[in-house]
Amino acid sequence: MKKLLVIGIGAGNPDYITIQAVKALNTVDVFFLMDKGRSKDTLIDLRRDICERYITDRHYRFVEARSPERDRDDADYRASVDDLNQARQRIFERLINEEMTDEECAAFLVWGDPALYDSTLRILQAILTSGACTFEYEVIPGITSVQALAAQHKVALNQIGRAVEITTGRRLAAGQVSEADSLVVMLDAQDAYRQVADQETEIYWGAYLGTPDEILISGRLKDVADEIERVRKAARLANGWIMDTYLLRKP
Amino acid sequence: MKKLLVIGIGAGNPDYITIQAVKALNTVDVFFLMDKGRSKDTLIDLRRDICERYITDRHYRFVEARSPERDRDDADYRASVDDLNQARQRIFERLINEEMTDEECAAFLVWGDPALYDSTLRILQAILTSGACTFEYEVIPGITSVQALAAQHKVALNQIGRAVEITTGRRLAAGQVSEADSLVVMLDAQDAYRQVADQETEIYWGAYLGTPDEILISGRLKDVADEIERVRKAARLANGWIMDTYLLRKP
Repeated sequence: MKKLLVIGIGAGNPDYITIQAVKALNTVDVFFLMDKGRSKDTLIDLRRDICERYITDRHYRFVEARSPERDRDDADYRASVDDLNQARQRIFERLINEEMTDEECAAFLVWGDPALYDSTLRILQAILTSGACTFEYEVIPGITSVQALAAQHKVALNQIGRAVEITTGRRLAAGQVSEADSLVVMLDAQDAYRQVADQETEIYWGAYLGTPDEILISGRLKDVADEIERVRKAARLANGWIMDTYLLRKP
Repeated sequence: MKKLLVIGIGAGNPDYITIQAVKALNTVDVFFLMDKGRSKDTLIDLRRDICERYITDRHYRFVEARSPERDRDDADYRASVDDLNQARQRIFERLINEEMTDEECAAFLVWGDPALYDSTLRILQAILTSGACTFEYEVIPGITSVQALAAQHKVALNQIGRAVEITTGRRLAAGQVSEADSLVVMLDAQDAYRQVADQETEIYWGAYLGTPDEILISGRLKDVADEIERVRKAARLANGWIMDTYLLRKP
């Protein structure tokens, strides 16, 4: 039976990887790397770096596949994600059927944790349901950028006995958030924190968390929102891409 | 300057620890262990086990302190937590002032991640603000039981593009939850999943996650709620304590 591992490799800092992940890396024959285009090359390099750093005395190979991009002109976000995931599913099927033998173990290395805003688990489950391939698989959790953010700001995500909502910039911008007093925002491509009405809200913002390029800014929105927008724009321009996340806390 | 580390050691499985945490452990002179009484001895043992397993060629010592318990008869939950945290703050101050020298590094080992439903960061910040001690400190994130739950069930926490709310059993039982279609419940002492009206809701439940005693149950509430309640009660009786968490997903 083919074996697949979905390994969370943490957010940015190679030291965020767990012992469980290191042990798992050392059982892998082939790593499937999904290339998202030149702006994300840094992320692929980091995956190769992690393999070199942590795999000892074992032969392994990389198979790269071009990952399709979501159609950003599609007004229907959900439909465009579904299209993307179907395209990715066909690529995964080809990799599993053609790029590994029945005795081998293959791995997908997932940035952060496979359970949070990543589609790998959903796609593998869809493949099993479709019957296009057979395999067994395991999931190995990893430190998310949300946790890196909290650790670097030395702040708890929740208030005492209260809830935390983890959501997307898209939902925040559309006003689709709950009354939770702690709100973690991921995947924000549009400075959605600018939409928050209460300017006394505290923001803990971080970009390139856990990497040498890490940037941290915190304070009340009225004091730091302009700075974050300016710094964010400049960093994206300088690096060609940005990955950032933030915690919003109501006063 | 005294140095403190707040180290997330992950949930249950010693392999959940990160390389960052292992490196940090190997710089520590003294570990402050808060003993929560006999039912939680297993957790203290696991902390000692982690030190033995991962610390190489370094002398270190443990200082145990009796952690006060929250007054469970206090009807005002928030007030009872505040009282508890003030009592813990005084203990932390004594440990920092009396149980380490200015040149030493001390660590608190936190189950899961220090950012999620743990008061260590809040207490240290309160001590710094009060001026009772001076120190510098760092935070090292760890794999939470929420991530262990998702990995073991091989399920994503969020639906595509949707939000996740992380909350407490107390809030769920009181109906204080949002409309999020994915709800993670922690610290549930009262089988609060029984309060969910829609019996088509899927539950992914796990106890003692990442340990040899791990129990996983999933399915629609109408099919598995009775089983979870029965298994949970029996496990708590057999082990003297239980730590469990679950994901609720609306149909």
